[in-house]
Amino acid sequence: MKKIAIDAMGGDYAPKAIVEGVNQAISDFSDIEVQLYGDQKKIEKYLTVTERVSIIHTEEKINSDDEPAKAVRRKKQSSMVLGAKAVKDGVAQAFISAGNTGALLAAGLFVVGRIKGVDRPGLMSTMPTLDGVGFDMLDLGANAENTASHLHQYAILGSFYAKNVRGIEVPRVGLLNNGTEETKGDSLHKEAYELLAAEPSINFIGNIEARDLMSSVADVVVTDGFTGNAVLKTMEGTAMSIMGSLKSSIKSGGVKAKLGALLLKDSLYQLKDSMDYSSAGGAVLFGLKAPIVKCHGSSDSKAVYSTLKQVRTMLETQVVDQLVDAFTDE
Amino acid sequence: MKKIAIDAMGGDYAPKAIVEGVNQAISDFSDIEVQLYGDQKKIEKYLTVTERVSIIHTEEKINSDDEPAKAVRRKKQSSMVLGAKAVKDGVAQAFISAGNTGALLAAGLFVVGRIKGVDRPGLMSTMPTLDGVGFDMLDLGANAENTASHLHQYAILGSFYAKNVRGIEVPRVGLLNNGTEETKGDSLHKEAYELLAAEPSINFIGNIEARDLMSSVADVVVTDGFTGNAVLKTMEGTAMSIMGSLKSSIKSGGVKAKLGALLLKDSLYQLKDSMDYSSAGGAVLFGLKAPIVKCHGSSDSKAVYSTLKQVRTMLETQVVDQLVDAFTDE
Repeated sequence: MKKIAIDAMGGDYAPKAIVEGVNQAISDFSDIEVQLYGDQKKIEKYLTVTERVSIIHTEEKINSDDEPAKAVRRKKQSSMVLGAKAVKDGVAQAFISAGNTGALLAAGLFVVGRIKGVDRPGLMSTMPTLDGVGFDMLDLGANAENTASHLHQYAILGSFYAKNVRGIEVPRVGLLNNGTEETKGDSLHKEAYELLAAEPSINFIGNIEARDLMSSVADVVVTDGFTGNAVLKTMEGTAMSIMGSLKSSIKSGGVKAKLGALLLKDSLYQLKDSMDYSSAGGAVLFGLKAPIVKCHGSSDSKAVYSTLKQVRTMLETQVVDQLVDAFTDE
Repeated sequence: MKKIAIDAMGGDYAPKAIVEGVNQAISDFSDIEVQLYGDQKKIEKYLTVTERVSIIHTEEKINSDDEPAKAVRRKKQSSMVLGAKAVKDGVAQAFISAGNTGALLAAGLFVVGRIKGVDRPGLMSTMPTLDGVGFDMLDLGANAENTASHLHQYAILGSFYAKNVRGIEVPRVGLLNNGTEETKGDSLHKEAYELLAAEPSINFIGNIEARDLMSSVADVVVTDGFTGNAVLKTMEGTAMSIMGSLKSSIKSGGVKAKLGALLLKDSLYQLKDSMDYSSAGGAVLFGLKAPIVKCHGSSDSKAVYSTLKQVRTMLETQVVDQLVDAFTDE
C-alpha cells in the first residue's frame, strides 16, 4: 500500500478540488491510501470515498501570501507542515500540496530533508511539446542561483525521472543555453557543459535553445533556477496572452467570427489541451528524501488526480530510493 | 538628409526583400538617402527608385553560418563590413543588416565602436504586448554575461529609446526578475535593483516577472543577456508552436474546421499581427556610436521598410547623440 499525504487546504479551489481529485484516485488505484490534512468538516463535505482514506484535522493553514520560511517555522499545526512532518515520521511516503510554493519548498528542505549528496533540490515539471510527449525541465526556480555542479546533479535527477516515471529508456539530456554550439554560454553554462559531457550515466546531447523546447529536442532539460523560472513564466505568459488575444478577437468579431469559433471548437479545445501539462502531474521538488510535489495553485480536481497518479508511479518505481543509492555510490 | 547604409545581401530573402523595402522607404520619406552594399546586378534587378539611392558594389558577403568575429576580420570587402565602415568613416549615419547577428555585433563593436562610458552595448527590440503598445527589452543576448553596472546602463539606454523613438514621456523601467518583491533574485539582480532604485534619471518601477511581459507592465525591461536571450527565444518558440499547432489542428479537422477557420480568418490574422513585432523595426545594438540595427533573418520587405523608418526616427531625434552627451556628463 502506498501512503500519500495531501494538503487539503492549499490552492485556489481547496478543499473541493483536492478532495474530488482524491475521490477519483482512490476509486481508480486500489494500491494507494490517502491522508487528507485540513479542516475535517470542510473536507467531509466533498469526500465520497470511505476506504483507504483518512482525515487529519487541523484548522491552521499557510496562506498564499505568507512569508514562506517564517510560515513554516511558525505555523507548526498547518496542513502543509503536518503533511510534510508525516513524511519525515514515516507515516506517509509522499506529500502533495497546491498551496504556497515557497512554503512547500521550505517545508520540503527543512522538514523532509535532502538526499545525501544532492546539494540543491530543484523544481521539476513535465512541460508540453507539440507531439504530446513532453520534457522534464529543472530547476524551474527552487533556487535563485546555481553552480555548475548543481546543474550536473539536475541532469542525473531528471534522467532518473524521465526513465522511471515517464518510461523513456535512454532520455536525451539537453543543457538550455544561448546557442547550440558547445562553446556557448556564460561561465556557469560552459562549466556545466563540461561536467555533463563527462558524465557517463546520462545521455547528454549538448546545448539546446529555448526556441526549440516545444519541438521535443530533448527529454530532460537542465537549467539554472533563475533562467528556468524566467523560461517557465514566459511560456505561461505567452500562451495565456495568445489564447486571451484570440478569445477577445472572436468576441469582438461579430456573428461571423463567433460562428467560425463554434465550428472550430474541437481544434481550439485540442490546442488548449496541448498546452495544458497538468495531466503529467505537478512540479516535483526533486532531490528530497521523498516525493514532495507541488500542484499548480489553480489546480482543478483533474490536476489533483493526475498528481496523485504521478506520485503513485514515483513510489511504484522507487525513483527516489534509486536516487538515494545513486548519490550514495558516488 | 539622413544617410542610411544597408546590407543588401543579408537575410533569407536578400537582396529582393531588402531592395523592395528600400524602394518603399525612399518613396515615403523624402529626407533619407540609402546606400545599398552588395552585388550591383542583383540589386538593380529589384531597384525601382532612382533618386537618393546608391549602390556600392561588392561580391563578398558574410554567410549566416560564418564564425562571426573571424568573418568580420577576414571578409573586409563583405557588404556587412563595408556598410559598418561607411558609418565609421562618416559616409553614412546608420547601418542596417538582416545578416549574421554575431557578425553584425562584432562589426558594430570593432568597426563602429562603443559610446564612451557604455561598457557593453546591448541588443534591444520593441516586443509585442496585447494592447499593441509594446515594450523595449535589453539585453536580448549581445552578451552572454553581464554585471549589475551593465544593467544599470541598459535602463538608461532603454529609457532614452522609449522616450525619443516611441514617444513615451516617462517610460516605466522594470527589472526582469524571478519575483516582484524587491528582495528577489540572484546576487546580480539584487545588486542591479539597488543601482536602478538609486538612479534619478529613470522611472524605475521595480521587479517584474516574465509572465507579465505581454501585459504591458513596463515600457522598458532590463535584463542580462543570458536571461534576455532565453526569454526572447521562449516567446518566439511558444508563439510559433501554438500557431503551428492550431494550423495543423485545422488542417486535420475536416470540412467543419476548415469552414470555421475561414469564418475566423480576420481574428486569426489579427492574432498573427499582434504577435508580429517587426512593424516596430529591428533589434538595435544599442550603446554604439551610431544606430546599428539588425533585421530578423526572415525579414520581408515590410520589415525592412519598418526598420528604415525606425532608423530614420533614431536619426531625427538624435537619440544616440543624446546618449553620448548623457554618458559624457556622468
